[in-house]
Formats: sequence, structure tokens, C-alpha cells
Amino acid sequence: MGQINTTVGDLDGNTRKIIDYIDQARSLKADLITFPELVITGYPPEDLLLYPQFIKDNLAKMHQVVAASRGIATVVGFVDGASGIHNAAAVAYDGELVGIYHKIHLPNYGVFDEERYFRPGKQCPVYVINGTSVGVNICEDIWHTSGPTAVQKAAGAEVIVNINGSPFHIGKQQTREAMLAKRAIENRIFVSYTNLVGGQDELVFDGASVIFNPTGDIVSRGKQFNEELIVADLDIESSQEPRPPVNNSIQDPMRPSDGLCSSTTTKVSAFSPASSPLLPIFKPTLLPDLAQVYEALVLGTRDYVLKTGFKKILVALSGGIDSSLVATVGVDALGADNVVGLSMPSRYSSEGSILDAMALATNLGFELRSLPIEGIFSAYLGTLRPEFDEKTSDLAEQNIQSRIRGNLIMAMSNNLGWLVLTTGNKSEMAVGYATIYGDMAGGFAVIKDVPKIMVYELCGYRNSLENKPMIPINVLKKPPSAELKPDQKDDDTLPPYAILDPILKAYIEEVHSFNDIVDMGFDKGIVQEIISMVDRNEYKRRQAPPGIKITPRSFGRDRRMPISNRYKPF
Amino acid sequence: MGQINTTVGDLDGNTRKIIDYIDQARSLKADLITFPELVITGYPPEDLLLYPQFIKDNLAKMHQVVAASRGIATVVGFVDGASGIHNAAAVAYDGELVGIYHKIHLPNYGVFDEERYFRPGKQCPVYVINGTSVGVNICEDIWHTSGPTAVQKAAGAEVIVNINGSPFHIGKQQTREAMLAKRAIENRIFVSYTNLVGGQDELVFDGASVIFNPTGDIVSRGKQFNEELIVADLDIESSQEPRPPVNNSIQDPMRPSDGLCSSTTTKVSAFSPASSPLLPIFKPTLLPDLAQVYEALVLGTRDYVLKTGFKKILVALSGGIDSSLVATVGVDALGADNVVGLSMPSRYSSEGSILDAMALATNLGFELRSLPIEGIFSAYLGTLRPEFDEKTSDLAEQNIQSRIRGNLIMAMSNNLGWLVLTTGNKSEMAVGYATIYGDMAGGFAVIKDVPKIMVYELCGYRNSLENKPMIPINVLKKPPSAELKPDQKDDDTLPPYAILDPILKAYIEEVHSFNDIVDMGFDKGIVQEIISMVDRNEYKRRQAPPGIKITPRSFGRDRRMPISNRYKPF
Repeated sequence: MGQINTTVGDLDGNTRKIIDYIDQARSLKADLITFPELVITGYPPEDLLLYPQFIKDNLAKMHQVVAASRGIATVVGFVDGASGIHNAAAVAYDGELVGIYHKIHLPNYGVFDEERYFRPGKQCPVYVINGTSVGVNICEDIWHTSGPTAVQKAAGAEVIVNINGSPFHIGKQQTREAMLAKRAIENRIFVSYTNLVGGQDELVFDGASVIFNPTGDIVSRGKQFNEELIVADLDIESSQEPRPPVNNSIQDPMRPSDGLCSSTTTKVSAFSPASSPLLPIFKPTLLPDLAQVYEALVLGTRDYVLKTGFKKILVALSGGIDSSLVATVGVDALGADNVVGLSMPSRYSSEGSILDAMALATNLGFELRSLPIEGIFSAYLGTLRPEFDEKTSDLAEQNIQSRIRGNLIMAMSNNLGWLVLTTGNKSEMAVGYATIYGDMAGGFAVIKDVPKIMVYELCGYRNSLENKPMIPINVLKKPPSAELKPDQKDDDTLPPYAILDPILKAYIEEVHSFNDIVDMGFDKGIVQEIISMVDRNEYKRRQAPPGIKITPRSFGRDRRMPISNRYKPF
Repeated sequence: MGQINTTVGDLDGNTRKIIDYIDQARSLKADLITFPELVITGYPPEDLLLYPQFIKDNLAKMHQVVAASRGIATVVGFVDGASGIHNAAAVAYDGELVGIYHKIHLPNYGVFDEERYFRPGKQCPVYVINGTSVGVNICEDIWHTSGPTAVQKAAGAEVIVNINGSPFHIGKQQTREAMLAKRAIENRIFVSYTNLVGGQDELVFDGASVIFNPTGDIVSRGKQFNEELIVADLDIESSQEPRPPVNNSIQDPMRPSDGLCSSTTTKVSAFSPASSPLLPIFKPTLLPDLAQVYEALVLGTRDYVLKTGFKKILVALSGGIDSSLVATVGVDALGADNVVGLSMPSRYSSEGSILDAMALATNLGFELRSLPIEGIFSAYLGTLRPEFDEKTSDLAEQNIQSRIRGNLIMAMSNNLGWLVLTTGNKSEMAVGYATIYGDMAGGFAVIKDVPKIMVYELCGYRNSLENKPMIPINVLKKPPSAELKPDQKDDDTLPPYAILDPILKAYIEEVHSFNDIVDMGFDKGIVQEIISMVDRNEYKRRQAPPGIKITPRSFGRDRRMPISNRYKPF
């Protein structure tokens, strides 16, 4: 399994990497190499798919990969453009295109818009590769009990090659593996699940490609969050059972209107079996949940920065926990030499906060610069005084400070060509506790999908990795504050995070209705207040930078709410 | 036809308006009143549809409408939640729910995500209302030659009631009417097309509900961009032909996998026919294209401001053509008393620009305030000097000025509670000729989908409406400039708009590939430059405020491009 990191639209680069992995697999005498879903275009290509030339260019690259399949069977994801656009897998051997599979089950929920682009396939072919019958299908296809896998099994398949562009969220790999084990057992079949790895805008693909044997045990599992050529031997012979009669059609109860999904078998010529003994089972342990999230943030940040053409990043450091975590992720993603922190103290910044930012920079070894905002703040107040009869509103004054910081860090970005990371967490983004064009100003919102309590947990996790805490303990201990007015604390205006975060999870991630959340035992008034804040601040989120999805439902493509919305569920 | 303006989520308000229109129609002795698609929830409700309580609340309102249908047949759009979620039409008479139709063809392209939410219907019922057979279907359903309309005709329908939430773009009404005339003629049937009216975030529904007779002539047409109860008599008897045999099933060639779309007929009891003579044909002329666009901008702006709970708007006035048009639209949308212009001159602002802004405010009668940015600009340059070795970059300095203006107008907005309209046009948004967090800062981007050349045309159109030009002629005559450095002109860095706009239209609206655009006769180098600018600036558009769709493809939900994107079609 070629678990590789592609870039959307980089057809040349993706194809070079695919061919490099084919060459490596051939030199290891593999019979078959498989690549992720839409690996030639990168995933998801979104509306690039509407451009005919993009489809044509991707087809040319697919044929280049086919030509490179000398002596090794190859399964590679691409966009088929022959009769309508299909999310497809090409099966190649020895320079020949042996067959094409069209994805049947097109996800059109959450972050996915596949019915916007693709027609569903209708055929479930089986290929005989070096004497072994292999059914190829794509991602969502394998989630359906009576889907292509069952049809291919019925047609004699001994191995299912399922190729994926499946994005990470907490707990996703456990869900995938439970389903894959079930599918392997119920069909008494090997299941090979090849996943993409890498960041693409809001999504992180976490790799962890995996192969199950017909008893539901793992034969091999790839790394999480890293590229890898995963090599395994499948002991087909000792798993063999009498072949069932071929059944060429099956109705999928999930899609009763799909009609026939018929199966044909194609023989793929292949070289003699290798005589070496079977490779031992290799199955690295899955990372704990927090480590998975941390690695997702690191990979997602590194790939966004590099894939959009930047090298260095800027982070505004307030001395608070959010910006401390973002800077730490930035250092782990790109190295301390490529991270510059910017302290922008005001009349309301505490001495402790400035020292905490300095301690973090010292611990991690990145450069910290400082631009005090007092002079500019005074100039704003002076300019605005005639408009506001001596005093601006409290809210306006707080936002001005935040926006001065936004402007200063953007000026640095414009001048130096470095990308600005923003530091808002999911709890703040949910209730609008952030200044649009202020602390929300920047290219990438690293922890946009991380609830505040998990921000603390992630800092604790990162601190546990080294002998001494890299993120100063004081940062974890002091009460959260925006420091935009004297003695300000988050819980002056927000419910405590221990109440806020579970309600937000119920409303946003679990899509529970108001009534159900109250039934879960939360105070009615607080639930009303929080839901109102979430709904009212949709306009801010619509102008927020993209950030990394780590929960089952993030803001962005994943949650599409109207701004003009008068719905009140209470 | 009750062509009404609803608000998404305002279930109470929408229902009150529906019942008010039912009462009006009853008092006019109408046999039947029809309302737009999803009129109870407002359209499109987007992910509100994922909340079970929202579905439940909408069902309660549907039953309230049914109860109000005393003595008049009523067709009303709602969300059916009985077995999966359906985009549905309820048919009611005399307080009884007579039947429910489920939309069969679910649009999942452009701005539409209906397959994300709804299951397709399978039944094509016909209702006999006061002796006349009526087939009800929804929006996209009628665009298919062999769709529900043909099935319902075959089952004896004499009238098709098609209910819509169909958003405006230039030329859309002409396309709709050509299709509706064709559908009427090919089925020898009356076609009644009831459309929504009003703005909802990026969309404007333009009304213009229309009825065609079986020879493809218009019986009645409602106003564009205004609410209206459209009353017409259908001369069924003189259009009658021998009834064809009933055919209960038909396969739609556009959706071959849909299976059967079967038809049943339900008799709806109704009162005796009115004895008064038929109403005369009433068919107001469609507005010319430019007037349609102007009205769409006015309605879209008014509804966004009011539906999000604001009363007054702020517009930064540079004296240029874009901000002049936006302020004028604002005045037409909300009245001069609810518009405040803000002039924020710098060292680079020309005397003429300041005078032009003043002339516009005087002509239209709105208040103009002024906040010079020089003091704040100097403070920024002073603060940044140590970072930038005496001089900031040209780009950084230009952006600082624009962002100071963004901050000042947002400070006014925060203090006074007025919504900020932004002034960027589509040509600028496409190539990134705008400052993120600067002139892009604000709640609603009125002319975001209007190409620069059309901005001139719209000003010319608006000036033609009164005896003297409201928008000063000097604004239309001077060469476009951002005035962020001495003697700056747009065409210093951009191709002339006469070349830029057609290339942008080909690439964005018509989704032509690079090769095709070059084949249209444009210079290869210029096409490369423009496509690169468009692709490179996706990140800015992702953080832009929403704006009004007026072309076949706007930025926003309509065009979903990756930010991390290395595709180069040349």
C-alpha cells in the first residue's frame, strides 16, 4: 500500500511520487501496489473537477502511471471522464490498463460533496492477479454491508482492495477498523484499506492504512500521519475455503434504486510467486486520542503552510494558552527557525503574560519580536473622539486593540512573506468570543476545531513529551483572559468552559436539538444563551480562516448554516 | 399564487404571512392558492435541516396552515419528516391535509446541496380540485421533459402547480419561461410556476411567478422583486381535449435509476365554480437586464440588513465608482436616513475624490462623516519602523491604509450598531485587488458578483432614472484608482477591464478551461496571468463577507475551490 501525501492539483508531483513508490514496491517483488482515492489529482479536488482540461490532464497522468506498472499490478485512484465524471480506480499491469472501477456510493454529507461531481458506478469487477481474485472498490463503498464487497466476494474475490481519501477526526480509526474487521469476517475475505495521508485545507488524512485477514485480524497497519510504503504478505492459500457459486447481481438495501451492480472477472497476467517466506505481521499500536489530535494539528499546519507556498510562520503571542499551543504546534510542524512570535503588549497586558510569552520562546528556541500597540491605540482614540463624544464604547475599544494587533501582524506578513497563524479555539469560534479582523486575522486557524478544555489537555500532552514543560506551567494555571480591559476574565461574559464545552459538543458536533440538550440535564437558560450565541455569530465564522478538522463536525464545509436565520428553538 | 418574502427559520412569521395570503385569496373567491417551495421554513434552510426539532416545529406550522385552508385549496412547501427528510408540498382543503408530494429531482450543483438533506420522492399524485385535475410538483422537477409533469399529464392532470425557491441570475427568467412554455406545449397543459421573492444571504429570489396556458402563452405574470398575490382565472374548459389513457408509470431518462414514479388521483371536495367572467390576462413586461440586476442588489441588500436585525448601514466612501454605487443601492434599499457614508481621506486621496463623495451624499441626501487616517497611519509607520529598517514595503504600506479604514469603520459599527457594507466588485474579488481586513472588512458585499464594467453600466442605469445624475459624472469619468500611493491607477497592475472582465467571465462563470479561453482569441500570457491571480487569491475570497449572486456563478457556495491548489493548466 502506497500511503502517500499528495497535493491537490499537483498532477506532475503526485504522479512522480506514485511512480517512485511503484518502483520501490517492484524492487521488493510485490505482486500488487495500491494507492489512495483520487491520488493523481489529490483529494478533494472540489470544483477543479468542473474544468474539462483538469479531467483531461489527470487522464494523461493516469496513463503515465499505467505505463510505469511494468511487472507489478497497480491500483490507482483517478477521475474517469469517459461518460460523465466518475471517482475511479485504474487497475494496471505491465504497462496495460486492465480495468477501471467506478465508485458506487458517493458521500454527500459532512465535508463531502461527491454527488455534486460524480456519477455512481454500476459494475463490481474482480481481477485475478497472480492467481488470486481481487475486488477493487473505493472508500464509502466498503461501509455498506450489501455493497460492492459482497458482490465481489460472491463473484469469487479473495481480497478486497479498498482505496480511500478518508479524513481524520477523533475516534475515526477505531470506527474504521471495527467496520473493516466486520466486513472481512462476514465475507471471509482479506480487506486491504489504503488511505491517503497529509493535510488539505481543513482536512487531515491520517494514513493508518490497514489489512485485515478473513478472521478479522490485522495483518499489517501503516503509520498514522506519515507517508509509508506498507508491505505485507497475504497468506491466501491457508485462508482458502471452497468457492461459493458466482452471484452476479445484488441489490444494496441502502440504495434500493441503484439497480444491478454486476460483476465480471478479468485475468491479469502476473509473474511467478515469490519463494521467500511470508513477512511477519506488523501492527504498530494506534496513538492515544490526544496524541492523534496533536499529530493531526502538526501535519495539517505543516501541509497548509508548505502546500500554499510559504516557508515561515508568524504567531501573535499573548502569553495565553491558545497562542502558546499554536506556536508550539508551529515549531513541531516547521522547526523553530521557521517560527516567529510577535508580542504586542497594550496598557492592559499583564507583566506575567509578557514573561510567559518570552519563556515559551526561550524553551522552544524560536524568535520573539515585540511591537507595543500603545501609540497606535492612542492615535485611534484621538481620531475617533469627535465621533464618539469623548468616549468610545467598551466593545469598540476592545476590538480596536485586537484589530491593531491584526493589522501589525499582517503588515509583518506582507513585508516578509510569512504566513500568519491565528490562535482562536473552537469554544471561542462557536460563541463569537473573538474579534473579526483582529485576532481572527490570518491565513490558517490551527486550533479552530479544538474546544478550550482540549487545548489544556493538548498542552499537558505536549509537556509530557520532554523532561521539562516546554509550555510554561503558569500559562496552564492562570485563568483565561483576553486582556483587553482591566482585570478581564473569560468567565465574566461566558459560562465556565466545563459547562460551555459539553453544551457546544452536543449542539454542534452531535447535532442535538435544544430540547434534547436540556433533557441531558443542562440549565435551560444557559443552553438558550449558548445556542443563541452560536447562531448569532455565524457571520464571524463565515469570514474566519480555514482550520483543521479534528472533531466529527467542524466549522467550515462541515457545517453549513444560514447567516440570516431567525430560528429560535425555545 | 402567493409570491411572498419569507425569512429562513422564522417559522412563526412565515406562517402568519401564509395564512394572511390564504385569507386574501379566499376573500377573492379563488379555488386554489399556491405558495413557494419550503415556504414555511424559508429557503434554503441549510443545516438547520439536520436538527430534528426544526423539522418537528415546521411540521406543526404546516398543520397550522392546513387548518387555515377553510374553503380554499392550498399548496404549501414544507419539510416532511415522516420517513427520512423530504422537500415536500402539502395539499390542503377545508382544514384537511389531502395529500403530500415529495420532490423527485434534487438539485446538487451550483449553490444547491439538496442531496445533502433530502431523499427523492417516488410518487406523482394528481388532485381533482373543483372538477379540475391538478398535478403538484416542485422546482427542479419541472425542468425534466420526462419528469413528474409528463407522468401527471398522463394521469389526467389539466394543470401543473410547480412551486419554487429559484434564485435570480441575469437571464434566468427568460430561461425559465422558455422551459415552462415548452413544458406547457409538449404536455398541452396549464403550468403555474410560483416563485419565492426576497433576499437570503447570497441569494435573491426574484419572484416573477408565471402561468402558461397549453399553447405556451402567458396567462399571468407576477412582479419581479416584490411580494404579490397573483390572481388569475384558468379557462380550463375551452382548453379541453379528449383525455388520454392513464399511464401510471414512466422512466425518467435523466435519472434512470429512480425506478417507478407512480401516480394516484385524489378528489378534493371544493365549492361551486364562481360565476363571474374570467379575469383578463395580466402580464407585466420583464425588466431589462440591468434593471433586474439593480433591483436584485436593492432587494438583496435590504433583506440582508433587515433579516439580520440591523436598521442602518455604514459605507466607506472613497469617491470612486464602486463605493458610490454601493451607497446608492443602500439608499434605495433602506432610505437616505438609514445610510451613513464615511470618508477616510489619506495623504494620497485626491481633492476630487473627497468632493465627489460629498456630491453623492448631497444628491442622495444621506449623511457623510469624515475621519482622516493620517494620524493613525503615522503611528503605524512609527511603530513598525524598527522592524522594517526605516521603510515598510510598498504593499505593506498600502494595506495598512486600507486596514486603518477597515478598523475605523468597524469601530463606528461596534459603537453605533450599524452594519458595514463593503464595496469590492467581482473583478477585484477575482484577482485579489482588495485588502483582506481592509476594504474587505464588513458584513455584506453588495457588488461582489458585479464585474467592474457592469458597475459602470449600473451607475449609468441609475443615473438615467432621474432628471439629473445622482452619481456625479466625474465618478464615472475618472480612471479607477485605489489611491493608496501617488498617482496610482488600477491598470498599473491589472489588465484593462475590457480584457479582464471577459476572461474572468469565461473562466469563472462559464467554467471554460485555459485552452478554450486562449482559443477564444485572448492573449495566452494575459490569460495565464489572470487565471493565476484568480487561483492564488482563493484564500482572500474564503474570508470575504457574503454578497449577492447576480451571475450564473458567483463566489461563495456557488464555486468551491481548494485554497491549497497547485494545478496549473499551462
